[in-house]
Amino acid sequence: MRIAELSQRTGVPVPRIKYYIREGLVDHGERTQSNQATYGERHVRRVRLIRALVTIGGLSVADTRTVLVGLDKPSLHSTLGTTMEAMGGHVSIRDDEHGQAAREFLGKLAERRGWHIHDQAAAASIVETIAIMYDLGLEHLLDAVDVYAEAAEKVASADLKMVARLEAPDAVLESAVVGTVLGGVLLDGLRRIAHADASRGMFPQL
Amino acid sequence: MRIAELSQRTGVPVPRIKYYIREGLVDHGERTQSNQATYGERHVRRVRLIRALVTIGGLSVADTRTVLVGLDKPSLHSTLGTTMEAMGGHVSIRDDEHGQAAREFLGKLAERRGWHIHDQAAAASIVETIAIMYDLGLEHLLDAVDVYAEAAEKVASADLKMVARLEAPDAVLESAVVGTVLGGVLLDGLRRIAHADASRGMFPQL
Repeated sequence: MRIAELSQRTGVPVPRIKYYIREGLVDHGERTQSNQATYGERHVRRVRLIRALVTIGGLSVADTRTVLVGLDKPSLHSTLGTTMEAMGGHVSIRDDEHGQAAREFLGKLAERRGWHIHDQAAAASIVETIAIMYDLGLEHLLDAVDVYAEAAEKVASADLKMVARLEAPDAVLESAVVGTVLGGVLLDGLRRIAHADASRGMFPQL
Repeated sequence: MRIAELSQRTGVPVPRIKYYIREGLVDHGERTQSNQATYGERHVRRVRLIRALVTIGGLSVADTRTVLVGLDKPSLHSTLGTTMEAMGGHVSIRDDEHGQAAREFLGKLAERRGWHIHDQAAAASIVETIAIMYDLGLEHLLDAVDVYAEAAEKVASADLKMVARLEAPDAVLESAVVGTVLGGVLLDGLRRIAHADASRGMFPQL
């Protein structure tokens, strides 16, 4: 197919696809005799995947490239690690009083749950979030953190069971990467709907 | 205090604070005799709150302004609605085949859970996410959606119980807004840590 059809099939504008090609996220199509590029189903899938990571997952083009390079590699853990670091948004670890208190808080939580923290980017993002709650004097927001942690465990376990049922290693890897990014967006949306629903039940007067 | 101290106390650079003042997110300090502005604890709190929404929650300055304006209003639901719309990232509703299938899927899920969907921005974000899973042929990622929905309900209910314990109406509103934004970041970070932890247990060979 020509690039116009690739654009139509994926919902991504032609100039944007050309930009992805220039940036090395999508490979060049095959050259036809008339010196025009032609694209296949492989390209449709790749452009849709990029769209998912960039538009929905909020990853930068540079981070998306890093994740896609990981997809060609054989290790699930290293690719997931890369994906999670890309999602982490490069948060710097705070080293002031509230940053240290937040790190301690997360350490104790991990101990209670029996977690080993492999994902340093996620840990940094949590520490920064908790530190800001302390900054604002809103540490009561953390009262429910064990409910959050339990919910996180159940979702993670369901995801992994789903991935474990897949047979092709490629499918495992792709599902794990896309599931990590899109699953987060899905869970956040559901939490907000559940909030709004429960809030009207509990605070009808507000 | 002078603006330099306000900057030091909040970790936000002086030019950035001046920008927030120009944009109407923070009010002008009081003028002293020497025609310099002086700031109080109220400003410290406001700048930290903005930092939380922008840096951690990923809201734009324009969306942050809308949320802050809502904080001065008396209705919890309207402010939370505004916050959630600002978080929704202005997702356009897809109207193609996969968009319609995704909307149907969410409708059935809401029916199973007994949810009324008040938060249209969250619904749009979920529909877009599910539609992309269909695009990619990865609809098996939705197998665990009821586990996600149950986790979302538990977290939402714990949040609301925490908010209900607060006494001052101002505190309720601020906690609800900050909790909505930061709670999502916290839950996503915990989910990623739980993923990485469980993944090494289930797939040691990868």
